[in-house]
Amino acid sequence: MKQLKSDIDFERENIMMNIAVAQSGGPTCAINASLVGVFREALKETAIDAIFGSINGIEGIINNHLVDMKSMIRTNDDMELLRQTPSTVLGSCRYKLPDWKDDDTVYKQIVKTLKQRHVGAFFYIGGNDSMDTVNKLSEYFATIDLDIKVIGIPKTIDNDLCVTDHTPGFGSAAKYVAVTMREITRDSTVYSIPSVTIVEIMGRHAGWLTASSAVLHKLGETAPHLVYVPEAKFSDEDFLRDVRHEMSKHKAVIVAVSEGIEVPEGVQSGVVDNFGHKYLSGIGKYLEELVRAEIGCKVRSIELNVMQRCSSHICSRTDITESESIGAAGVRCALSGETGKVMVFKRMYDMPYTTVITTADAELIANKEKFLPKEYINKAGNNINDSALSYFLPLIQGELDLIMEHGVPKHFTLQESVLK
Amino acid sequence: MKQLKSDIDFERENIMMNIAVAQSGGPTCAINASLVGVFREALKETAIDAIFGSINGIEGIINNHLVDMKSMIRTNDDMELLRQTPSTVLGSCRYKLPDWKDDDTVYKQIVKTLKQRHVGAFFYIGGNDSMDTVNKLSEYFATIDLDIKVIGIPKTIDNDLCVTDHTPGFGSAAKYVAVTMREITRDSTVYSIPSVTIVEIMGRHAGWLTASSAVLHKLGETAPHLVYVPEAKFSDEDFLRDVRHEMSKHKAVIVAVSEGIEVPEGVQSGVVDNFGHKYLSGIGKYLEELVRAEIGCKVRSIELNVMQRCSSHICSRTDITESESIGAAGVRCALSGETGKVMVFKRMYDMPYTTVITTADAELIANKEKFLPKEYINKAGNNINDSALSYFLPLIQGELDLIMEHGVPKHFTLQESVLK
Repeated sequence: MKQLKSDIDFERENIMMNIAVAQSGGPTCAINASLVGVFREALKETAIDAIFGSINGIEGIINNHLVDMKSMIRTNDDMELLRQTPSTVLGSCRYKLPDWKDDDTVYKQIVKTLKQRHVGAFFYIGGNDSMDTVNKLSEYFATIDLDIKVIGIPKTIDNDLCVTDHTPGFGSAAKYVAVTMREITRDSTVYSIPSVTIVEIMGRHAGWLTASSAVLHKLGETAPHLVYVPEAKFSDEDFLRDVRHEMSKHKAVIVAVSEGIEVPEGVQSGVVDNFGHKYLSGIGKYLEELVRAEIGCKVRSIELNVMQRCSSHICSRTDITESESIGAAGVRCALSGETGKVMVFKRMYDMPYTTVITTADAELIANKEKFLPKEYINKAGNNINDSALSYFLPLIQGELDLIMEHGVPKHFTLQESVLK
Repeated sequence: MKQLKSDIDFERENIMMNIAVAQSGGPTCAINASLVGVFREALKETAIDAIFGSINGIEGIINNHLVDMKSMIRTNDDMELLRQTPSTVLGSCRYKLPDWKDDDTVYKQIVKTLKQRHVGAFFYIGGNDSMDTVNKLSEYFATIDLDIKVIGIPKTIDNDLCVTDHTPGFGSAAKYVAVTMREITRDSTVYSIPSVTIVEIMGRHAGWLTASSAVLHKLGETAPHLVYVPEAKFSDEDFLRDVRHEMSKHKAVIVAVSEGIEVPEGVQSGVVDNFGHKYLSGIGKYLEELVRAEIGCKVRSIELNVMQRCSSHICSRTDITESESIGAAGVRCALSGETGKVMVFKRMYDMPYTTVITTADAELIANKEKFLPKEYINKAGNNINDSALSYFLPLIQGELDLIMEHGVPKHFTLQESVLK
C-alpha cells in the first residue's frame, strides 16, 4: 500500500462539502464495515468531495490528525478487505468531551479543524459513550450557529444501546460465542469423570452476549446448562445448588456467565476508566475456585476475552452487511439535513428477518444502557427462555467469503507510522 | 440419530476379522478425522467385518463398552460431519496401563473383550501416552502369543511426538493460533497509548505451537514481537528488557508465550495428572502483573485456552485431510501384518508440500517428547527465526466447507447416554 501522509494539506478555494468520519470505543468485527458504508455512500454523492478519516476517534479531530480516505482505499478489493478486518482501522479512543459550559477549549479545537478542512458533516461510529460526543457536539454547533451535521453510527458487542433493535458488532460477537460455546461443549464431554466448565463472557451491566449463547438450545444442545446475566440476582449459594442439580443430569456441565454479575467485592479489580466503567475480570476464576472448594469436582474456567470482539474469521454476514448499510444510511441522513441523530435498526419481522434503518435523537442513546428484558430470563434466573431465541438467531446468520493469505485471513491496515 | 445400544451382543461363529478403535488424550480438531480414516478404510476391506468404537479410550476395551460404528455412521453426510467435529466422539481417557509384569489384571480384561468381540486389530488414536499403551499391549500380546495387531495413530496439538514430521491436530491448532494472534494484533493497536498484550499458548515442555505464531512474520506482521518457548532460557529481567526494547519500536507490543516456560515456583499450580504432567496455568497472568509492576503501562494477558484445540470452525484442511489419511494407512498397516507400530509422516518437500506416511516402532515414540530444534530459535531466545517458518506454513493451509445449522457449525455427536 502506498505510504499515506499522516497529515494532508488539503485546502480548496471552491468548496463542495467534505466529510469526516471517526471510530471510537472498544473494537468489534463490524466497525470497519460501517466505515466502508460511510465511504462507499459518500463516493456516490456528488455533493461530497474529500472523505477524511480521523485517527483515534475524536482525538484526531482535536489534533487535526486526519487521513484522506480516497488515498487510503483505492480499489474494490481494498473495500472488501476493510469490511472483513476486525477492530478500528483508524484507531480508537476513550475520550470523553467535557461539558462545553464548563470548558470549551477542545470544542474550539474541533471547530478549527472541521472549518479548516471544510467539513460539512462528521460521522462518529461508536457506543453509548461516543453518542454522548455526538449529542454534545451537535448541541454546541447549534449554540454557536455552525452548520456542521453530526451523525452517530452505533456499534458495540454489548448490544446495550437504547432505541435500536440491536447494535452493529453484536451479531458477530454472538456468533463467535455460540460457535465457540458449542466447540467447548464438545471439548468438555470427552472424559468419563464429571466436570464443570465455566465460560466467562463480556458484558459489564447487560447480559445480551451471554444470553445469546443459549441459541445452542435451538440446535439440540443441552449446553449451556446454566446462564447467569447481570440482570438476574446472583448468589454463591444458588449457584452451587444450580451446579449440583445440573451435575445430577449431565456428566459435563457448561456454565455461561457474564463478567458483570454481582460477586463479592475484590473479585472485580475496581480500576475505573474515563467513563467510570470498572474494568472487570476474574468472575470465571472466582466461580471455578468456588466449585473446586465446595463441590470438589474437575472444574475449569475459560475467558473468551477479546476474541469475542475481534474474531472476524467467524463474523456474521448479517452483521457485516447491516453494519455497512447503517453507515451508508448515516451519510444519507446528514445530506437530508439532520444532525444530532443516531442511526438505529427497527425490526419488522424475526422471520423472514426484516429490519429498516431509521434515526433517534442522540440524547436518547448517549450514556444510557438497555438491559435484557425480564421475559428473556427464566424464573430461576439461571437460564434464558426459548422464546427469546428468535431475537438472537437472525443476527448470527451467514458467513463471509474470507480473503486468505497463506492460510490466514488477510487484513487491511494502515502503516504503524500513520497511527502514531 | 437412531439410539445406539451401549453394549452390543455381537457374537459370530464364522469369523472374519473385526477391528476396534479408540481415541485418547486431550481433544484436537483432527482426532475424529483419523477415526473416519480408520472407518472408511475398514469399510473397503472385505477381510474386516464389524468396526467397534471403544468408549473412553482403552477404558472401553477394559470395561467391554463398545459401539458398533456401522450403526453409528450411516451416511456419507455422517462421515463428513464427523470429520469436521472437534474433540473425540467416542470419549477419551488418561488411563495409563501398568507394567504387565507387575500386574496383568487389566491386560486380561482387555484380552477377554478383544477375544469375545473377535477383534483382530486394535487402533489407538492418541499422543505419546497412548503410544505407551500401543507399545505395552503389542509386547504383552507377543508374550502370550496372541495374534491381535496393535497400531497407533498419532495426534496431539503439542506436535511433540518423536520420529513423525508433525502430528495430526497440530496444523489446526497452529492455524487457530495464527488467525487469532493476527486478530488480537488488530484489536491491540487501536488506542494511542502504549500497551503490551501477552498471549498464553499451550505447550507443556515443547514450544511448537507457540513458535508457530511466528508465521505472521511471513504475512507482513511485526507481531508477535516476542516469542518465548520452554526450549529457551527465560528470566524476568531479560523479559522486561525485551519488552522495553520492543516498546521503543512499537506502540502495541504483542508477546506469545508458552504455558510451559520456566517461571518462579507457585505460578504453576503443581497439580499432577496420571502421567506425571503438571497442570499449568497462570504464566500469562504472571507476566502481566510483572509488566504492570515494573513498567507500569497498559497491559493485558489472554489465554487461548481450550479454543486452540477445539476450534474446528477454523481448522486446517491440510491437517484434516492428512489426519484422515494416516488413520486409513493404519488399517492397511495392520492388514499387512504389522503390530506395535505408530504411523508417522515423513516430509519430502516443504514446497510443493509433500509427505509420505510410513511406520515407526511404538517404543521410539511412547513417553518421549520432541523439542523445537535449536536453529528455530533466535540467538536472544526471544523469537523464532524466519528460516523455521517453511516448516510451519504448509500445515495451516486450506479450510473446510463447513456444514452449518442456524449460523453455527454442526457437529456429529453420540447421545449422552451412550457415553455414560
